[in-house]
Amino acid sequence: MITLLTFPFLLRLISFTKSTYSMGLFRDNGVVYKSVHDVDLGPNTDEIYLHADVKAPRMAGLIAKLFVWFLEMKLIGDILLYFLKKNNRIQKLVSYGVMEDSPLYVPLHPYEDFEEEDVKSLCPGLSPADQVQHAIDCLQSSDSTLQDSHFSFRRWKIMDYSRAYSSQQITPLVVAERLISAVVQSSEPGMDMSFFISYDARDILRQATESTLRYQRGEPLSVLDGVPIAVKDEIDCMPYPTTGGSKWLHKVRSCKEDACCVERLRSCGAILVGKTNMHELGAGTSGINPHYGTSRNPYNPKRISGGSSSGSAAVVCAGLCPVALGVDGGGSVRMPAALCGVVGFKPSYGRIPHSGVLPLNWTVGMVGVLAGTVEDSLIVYAAISGQPEPHQSPMPRLKLPMLKHSSMSSIRLAKSNEWFNDCSDDIRSCCLKALASLQKLYGWETVEVTIPDIEVMRLAHYVTIGSECTASIAHHLEHKSESGWDVRVALSIYGSFDSRDYLNAQRIRNRQMRFHEKIFSMADVIVSPMVGYDLVP
Amino acid sequence: MITLLTFPFLLRLISFTKSTYSMGLFRDNGVVYKSVHDVDLGPNTDEIYLHADVKAPRMAGLIAKLFVWFLEMKLIGDILLYFLKKNNRIQKLVSYGVMEDSPLYVPLHPYEDFEEEDVKSLCPGLSPADQVQHAIDCLQSSDSTLQDSHFSFRRWKIMDYSRAYSSQQITPLVVAERLISAVVQSSEPGMDMSFFISYDARDILRQATESTLRYQRGEPLSVLDGVPIAVKDEIDCMPYPTTGGSKWLHKVRSCKEDACCVERLRSCGAILVGKTNMHELGAGTSGINPHYGTSRNPYNPKRISGGSSSGSAAVVCAGLCPVALGVDGGGSVRMPAALCGVVGFKPSYGRIPHSGVLPLNWTVGMVGVLAGTVEDSLIVYAAISGQPEPHQSPMPRLKLPMLKHSSMSSIRLAKSNEWFNDCSDDIRSCCLKALASLQKLYGWETVEVTIPDIEVMRLAHYVTIGSECTASIAHHLEHKSESGWDVRVALSIYGSFDSRDYLNAQRIRNRQMRFHEKIFSMADVIVSPMVGYDLVP
Repeated sequence: MITLLTFPFLLRLISFTKSTYSMGLFRDNGVVYKSVHDVDLGPNTDEIYLHADVKAPRMAGLIAKLFVWFLEMKLIGDILLYFLKKNNRIQKLVSYGVMEDSPLYVPLHPYEDFEEEDVKSLCPGLSPADQVQHAIDCLQSSDSTLQDSHFSFRRWKIMDYSRAYSSQQITPLVVAERLISAVVQSSEPGMDMSFFISYDARDILRQATESTLRYQRGEPLSVLDGVPIAVKDEIDCMPYPTTGGSKWLHKVRSCKEDACCVERLRSCGAILVGKTNMHELGAGTSGINPHYGTSRNPYNPKRISGGSSSGSAAVVCAGLCPVALGVDGGGSVRMPAALCGVVGFKPSYGRIPHSGVLPLNWTVGMVGVLAGTVEDSLIVYAAISGQPEPHQSPMPRLKLPMLKHSSMSSIRLAKSNEWFNDCSDDIRSCCLKALASLQKLYGWETVEVTIPDIEVMRLAHYVTIGSECTASIAHHLEHKSESGWDVRVALSIYGSFDSRDYLNAQRIRNRQMRFHEKIFSMADVIVSPMVGYDLVP
Repeated sequence: MITLLTFPFLLRLISFTKSTYSMGLFRDNGVVYKSVHDVDLGPNTDEIYLHADVKAPRMAGLIAKLFVWFLEMKLIGDILLYFLKKNNRIQKLVSYGVMEDSPLYVPLHPYEDFEEEDVKSLCPGLSPADQVQHAIDCLQSSDSTLQDSHFSFRRWKIMDYSRAYSSQQITPLVVAERLISAVVQSSEPGMDMSFFISYDARDILRQATESTLRYQRGEPLSVLDGVPIAVKDEIDCMPYPTTGGSKWLHKVRSCKEDACCVERLRSCGAILVGKTNMHELGAGTSGINPHYGTSRNPYNPKRISGGSSSGSAAVVCAGLCPVALGVDGGGSVRMPAALCGVVGFKPSYGRIPHSGVLPLNWTVGMVGVLAGTVEDSLIVYAAISGQPEPHQSPMPRLKLPMLKHSSMSSIRLAKSNEWFNDCSDDIRSCCLKALASLQKLYGWETVEVTIPDIEVMRLAHYVTIGSECTASIAHHLEHKSESGWDVRVALSIYGSFDSRDYLNAQRIRNRQMRFHEKIFSMADVIVSPMVGYDLVP
């Protein structure tokens, strides 16, 4: 005889009683869990012990078989499972549980921490300013670029600011005043560039004044002192709310302190000039935002800047800041960078602490850097990278490439032809020209490879980011109707994936990790167009 | 104007054409992926490049809004999403994809590899026989236990076998012959213990003969030489099929070589005596198996042995083997061990290589040891632990506790009272007695703690193992009807979890990991009854 008592799960489905939920812990049908630090683990705690409820009727013989038969039917089975799940504690305690914790697993793949030529390995525990100094040591020294310029418009680089401040050619305060007036101008009707979601002129001037005083005392904190840096509105930065490009997220999650990466930039003296516009909730790459306007592309204001870090790319492109922070979950730094003609850098998982960044997903979104030059992205990367508590995640040491001509002689570029060529003719010819000049300038050779299953990887990524976004913000979805139409479509689809979809996506990622390991044994860099076709034709 | 061209996912839903699937790659509606090693990454590969299909109608204005409105409706939205998902490549390429790869993430939490008192740290890369020797060094020496016994029945320990063989008191061949006759006897009608799913007398005798010759030459491979060890039928062991307790799994997945842990036991000279009975697919803990009979409990053949490693616990309990291997995903080693009165040991994730074990899940199931004594489980653990390629997962060094009286003076036992007491009166009084004798014998003190959310953890575990089991064997589910009724119920429920359920379960695991870190700073061991109530009253 088979009895249902051998199905531990089912017991609870059937024997569930509403009386369990008298604890006042529940919101939106789900338990709200305390922060781990607030839970008393001692013997006299106020934590409630829930007994596993094992009272249950028994099903045996024909009735059990009939039950299985119904359960395995296509539609009736789904309905049966729906009610079984609805009336049990899995929904209350797991599915709809509200907690601040991230999942146990992080995409840290095994690594070997070997020494590389022309790469500088840093010890853990250095201050951001020290790490910036190490980055400067990796750069080709050239102290006369500003004067040499023959262009009518050129962007200032970090070192341009630093030298100009140190030589008292200009002060951070003057730069800040000009920046504020440029931002005001860019927001006026007719121009309407929609770069920022929020900025506070008084706060900017206060920082600039402090920086100016430091230069007057001859004590700048680092080469970043007085350098204006903008921050995507997905990253906490005082005194601004963090909207995530939405009209509601900052109302349910307040910004109480700087994100770790922002705090590090402050400690280097950078002037944080406001929160840049973005695609709502990072759930798209056009940067079209119905609430805060669409960031226009400085090269052609009739075109989009791309997204989701749209404003960050646009302000760097426009020359307002040499650098801006973005967050990249699936091209959100790299795509707007490409469309705005600036450098977009997404570091490996775990390099930059994620605390203080909106938790829209856990395993794919990372803080990234948008910059006018590769050198500037390296400097800011050095400032913000490194885990605060090194023992918490076993990471290889931070490594900075030497960007000196003498050490750039042996880079191998991997090119997967069909993928590389899957773009419009003008983009293809432009990218081929770039490869040709790298060959000519540095002698870098191209290695032809095949990256398998690229479309599969794209879909697996979509399932991953969608599933994680749903689990992360689902308990706020009563605000869904306050979002834009495209985001509402995205959120509906995000919520439709089952656990098998998610797990298979993670298996595909593992396959790809192993393919990429092999490819990186054949080459140092994979090259491809970042965006193949017009996003909005 | 919003256009659907800004919804990259939706495009593909709408523009999907059946013609894509002419590649002959598809089975059961899902792509069958090659092994990573079989994919040619060079330029002249036969891998097919799938273009992301971007032809699509545009939806704008009122039509787009209507579409969102329908999508967000409860029932209509679900139906719409069902068809959207059904007709797109996510199902073909991700959901139903068939691949051998595990997910990218493994539950390796950060660790500090510190030195501990009374613990022996081993260097990586030692042979299994060397590791066994280190384990022996950790034991209290006592060379006369066998002669001293006053009991009518007592189990032989590994060292009893080793000493008896070395002193030529008995040979492995004689032990093997007696074992085979005992197994035959236990299977006869009237006894019908159903310990094994398969065993091969000729193969056992061949191994025993070889071991006997090694002792005759005075060259045993280790103290495990000639020791009979049984293996749960979830672990590959030549020359047997690996049924997983089912009637069909071995037909779709053949056993071609020993699992890594089995191979290591062989290299130590152990005699592998067959594949033990188990709960079908490990999907239950009673051990009631409709296909191979139910392993009876040697203490009382009218009672179950528990499961899912039911046969492994029973053969150790019956004294047929001093040790057997099991696999524990949610108590599957520890529960039958408790019911059979033997030691059940589930090591931490990653300690024992998982290759050659049925991939029924990825993050919770681990090879475990069932043994008559703690000492014997330590010896076998030493034989089989250690990753084959150490750089592939950053693991702390293998550590073996010194099991000598002199070094066992300061163990602190954590007891969560409400959980500890959540059991029947006889079990509670029995466990309290055990604590009292540990206090009396070794002076071990009990620390009262609270482990929060135990019931939540149990449900999160159920969601985790169910989701992973579904993703792992879903492509074989055409064989579902060949499984037992209880397993069919389990598989139906397993398939009902969505990605939010799974991800929230992983967040709960992270919370628990942090709770447990704190508890293990207060104590060395958590004590509780393993099974609180009769599984089948």
